[in-house]
Amino acid sequence: MKAAKPLPPYLVRRYQGWKATTYSENSTWYKHLANEGQHPRAMVISCCDSRVHVTSIFGADTGEFFIHRNIANLVPGYEPDGAQHGTSAAVEYAVTALKVAHLIVLGHSSCGGVAGCMAMCSGHAPELLEKSSFVGRWMDILKPGYEKVKDEPDPETRQRMLEKEAVLTSLNNLMDFPFVREAVEAQSLSLHGLWTEIGAGALEYYDPAKGGFYPV
Amino acid sequence: MKAAKPLPPYLVRRYQGWKATTYSENSTWYKHLANEGQHPRAMVISCCDSRVHVTSIFGADTGEFFIHRNIANLVPGYEPDGAQHGTSAAVEYAVTALKVAHLIVLGHSSCGGVAGCMAMCSGHAPELLEKSSFVGRWMDILKPGYEKVKDEPDPETRQRMLEKEAVLTSLNNLMDFPFVREAVEAQSLSLHGLWTEIGAGALEYYDPAKGGFYPV
Amino acid sequence: MKAAKPLPPYLVRRYQGWKATTYSENSTWYKHLANEGQHPRAMVISCCDSRVHVTSIFGADTGEFFIHRNIANLVPGYEPDGAQHGTSAAVEYAVTALKVAHLIVLGHSSCGGVAGCMAMCSGHAPELLEKSSFVGRWMDILKPGYEKVKDEPDPETRQRMLEKEAVLTSLNNLMDFPFVREAVEAQSLSLHGLWTEIGAGALEYYDPAKGGFYPV
Amino acid sequence: MKAAKPLPPYLVRRYQGWKATTYSENSTWYKHLANEGQHPRAMVISCCDSRVHVTSIFGADTGEFFIHRNIANLVPGYEPDGAQHGTSAAVEYAVTALKVAHLIVLGHSSCGGVAGCMAMCSGHAPELLEKSSFVGRWMDILKPGYEKVKDEPDPETRQRMLEKEAVLTSLNNLMDFPFVREAVEAQSLSLHGLWTEIGAGALEYYDPAKGGFYPV
Repeated sequence: MKAAKPLPPYLVRRYQGWKATTYSENSTWYKHLANEGQHPRAMVISCCDSRVHVTSIFGADTGEFFIHRNIANLVPGYEPDGAQHGTSAAVEYAVTALKVAHLIVLGHSSCGGVAGCMAMCSGHAPELLEKSSFVGRWMDILKPGYEKVKDEPDPETRQRMLEKEAVLTSLNNLMDFPFVREAVEAQSLSLHGLWTEIGAGALEYYDPAKGGFYPV
Repeated sequence: MKAAKPLPPYLVRRYQGWKATTYSENSTWYKHLANEGQHPRAMVISCCDSRVHVTSIFGADTGEFFIHRNIANLVPGYEPDGAQHGTSAAVEYAVTALKVAHLIVLGHSSCGGVAGCMAMCSGHAPELLEKSSFVGRWMDILKPGYEKVKDEPDPETRQRMLEKEAVLTSLNNLMDFPFVREAVEAQSLSLHGLWTEIGAGALEYYDPAKGGFYPV
Repeated sequence: MKAAKPLPPYLVRRYQGWKATTYSENSTWYKHLANEGQHPRAMVISCCDSRVHVTSIFGADTGEFFIHRNIANLVPGYEPDGAQHGTSAAVEYAVTALKVAHLIVLGHSSCGGVAGCMAMCSGHAPELLEKSSFVGRWMDILKPGYEKVKDEPDPETRQRMLEKEAVLTSLNNLMDFPFVREAVEAQSLSLHGLWTEIGAGALEYYDPAKGGFYPV
Repeated sequence: MKAAKPLPPYLVRRYQGWKATTYSENSTWYKHLANEGQHPRAMVISCCDSRVHVTSIFGADTGEFFIHRNIANLVPGYEPDGAQHGTSAAVEYAVTALKVAHLIVLGHSSCGGVAGCMAMCSGHAPELLEKSSFVGRWMDILKPGYEKVKDEPDPETRQRMLEKEAVLTSLNNLMDFPFVREAVEAQSLSLHGLWTEIGAGALEYYDPAKGGFYPV
C-alpha cells in the first residue's frame, strides 16, 4: 500500500481538540465501552449521504446505535449463496450476535441514489444500465419500487414516493431473512421505517395500518 | 409490510427535542444543504460498531463526510460482474459523482468482525464457515490478512494486527477499482488509512514509508 | 508599476517549505478546490488585526470560510448609490452568488480601529476628524455606537462596550441590505455576532433574548 | 438586533477544542499579543475567496500579517472625498499607524470577482451593470485592466491575464496614496505583487524589470 497519505492537518488539529475536550471529559465512558463491549439498543440502516446523521437527529451518544450506511439505505434480497453481501452481514451480526431490539431503516429527501434509479428506469441514464455500473446494479434492488410510482406525473412527488418505496423494499426484504423473521415473530425485534426531509427537519414513520408515512 | 412498528417513544421525544433546539437554531444550514446539495470533502469507510463515531472524533458537522459503514470497514475486491456490491457502489458514487478529495478507511480496536475472522480462520468458529453465514463470507475478504498475522503468539496483539490488516486490505482493494486508481494517479483523490483505540481515544495513521501505523 | 520588489527571502523560503510539505501532502484537496470551485459554508467579517485568525479558532481549513477583513469588522449602511463599496460587494457576493448559510461578524479586544473611534469622538484625535482621514471616515460608521457607551467612566470597559457595539452595528446594517434581509427571512441565512478576547482566548456571542454578549 | 443566532454547535465544539489545545499550549503568546499590541511585519491584501489563505502559504502565525480581504484583492483609486473607503482605511492604518515594512497584494486563479468583471465588460452580465450592483461597481476598478486583455482569444488565458491586471491595478493605485508613495520613496515600505494558482500551489511575483509575473 504505497498510496496512503498522512491525515490532512486540519483533521489532525480537530482530532487533537476532540481528544483534549470531549474524550478527556468522558474518558471513563470510552474506557467502559472498550472494556465491556458494545450493547447497542438499535441497528440503523441509513444512507451514506453526508446530510443524514441519525445520531444527531436522535441525540444518540457513542454506543447507542449499530449503524450500517449504504447508498439509498437498501437491504437486498436474502441470498445465502456464499457470495459477499455486506448489508446482509451487518444485519446478521446485529440481530444474531448483538441481539438489537430495534431495526430502523431511515430514508431521506433529495437522495442521489434514488434519483439515479429514477433516471435509469426512465431511460435517462444509460450508463447506469451497464453491467460494470456498481451504482446501477445496486439500485436494481429498487426497480420493483419504481414500477409502483412511475405513473405519478410530478417529478418531485415521484422522487419522494420512490424514496419511501426504498424504505419499504428494505423492510420487506428484511422479513425474508430467517433470523429477522424469527426475531420479529418472537417479539424480540421490531422493525421501523422512517423518512426524513432534510431542509424542514421533518421525520415520518411508516404506519402499516394506514399504509403510508406519517409525521412522528 | 405489516411488521413495521411506530418509533419507540424515547426516540420520538429525542427527535422532538432535536427539532426544537438543534434543528431550529440551525435551520438555515439544513435548508442550505437541501437546496444546494451535498459537497462532502471526504468519504469515510468505517465499521458499523456503535462505539466508532467518525463525526465526533473529527468535529465534523452534517454535510462534511460521505460515510459508508459496514462490518470491519472492509472494501471487497473489484468485481464488475453485474451482482449487487453495496460497498463498491458507495465508493463509485463518492469518487465519480461527488468527486470527494479524500477516501479515509477507519479501523478500530475490539472489532467484533475481526475477532470473528480470527476465530473462523483458527478453527474456533465452524458456524462462520457455513455457506449461509453472511458474516463469515464477508470476513473472507480478510483471510489473506489473517495469513500475515497468524504466527503472532499474543492474542491481543494478533487482534490489533489483524484490525490494521483490515485497513490495509481495504486500501489495497480500493486501488484495484479503475476509477479510484485513476483519481489517485491524477492527484484528485488521496487515500488515508486510520486505526483508533476506543478506550484511550488514540488515533494512528498508516505511513507507507515506514510500513506501519503511527500516532497522528 | 516600477515600484514592486521581489518577495523577501524569508517568505520565499517559507512558501517553498509549504509547497514541499503541506501542499504536497494535500495536493488532492487543492486540485479539488480548483476544479470544483468553492462552496464555503459561512462568510466571516473580521478585523484586519494580525492577532485575529478566525480559521485558527474554528479549526477551519482552506475552503470553509469566505472571509472579508476590514478595520474594526464594520459593515457600512446600505447605499446603492453607484459608488465603490468593498464591504457591501463582499456581502452581496457571499449571499447572492455563493449562498452561504451563515454570516458571522467577529469583533475582538484591543481593537485599534475602535480605540481610534473613541479618541476621535471624545476629542482626543483631531487628525481623525479631517476629511482626508480614511480611518476617521471609516470609523464614522461607529459614531452612533459611541453615543451609547460614552457615559461609561472606566476606559477599558468603555472600549470593550464599543467593540461589541461595532459587532451590533454591523449586524444591524446588514439587515438593511435587501438581499440579506430576504435570505434571513427565508431562513436560508443566519446572522451571528461574536467577540473574542485575545489574551484569554475567550469567545462570546450576542444573545438577542438577553440583549448582551455571553460565553459560547 | 433581533436576528442574531447562537453559533452552530459544530463551531462551538471546535472552538473548545482549539481553546484546550492550540490556545492552551500557546497562551503566553496570546497574552503577549494582548498586552504588547500587534507589530505585524507586513500587510497583505488578498481576496475573500475561501481557497486563498495567505497565512497557510507563508506559514504565518498569529501576529505576523495585517490582512485586508476584499473581492478580487482590489485597491480603489485615491479619493479623499470624505466618503467611507474601507480598503483605503486599512491601507492608511497599516502604513501610517502600524508602519508595516511590506505591502503585499495577492491575486489568485479562478477568481469569481475577476470572472464577473470579464462577463460584465464583454456584455454577458447585464445585472452587474446596474447601479445597485455592489459587485459590479466594485469591479469597475478593474475596467481599465479589461481593456488591456480583451483581445486575448483564449478565455482561460484572458482570465489569468485579468487576474494579474487586478494585482497591478492595486499596486498602481496604492502608489497614488501620498502616505504610501512617501514611505516607498523613503524605503521604509516595499510593495509586492503576487499571484497564486490554487490547484498547483504555484506562486508568481511581479518583476517590474521584465514586466511580467514569474515563479518565486
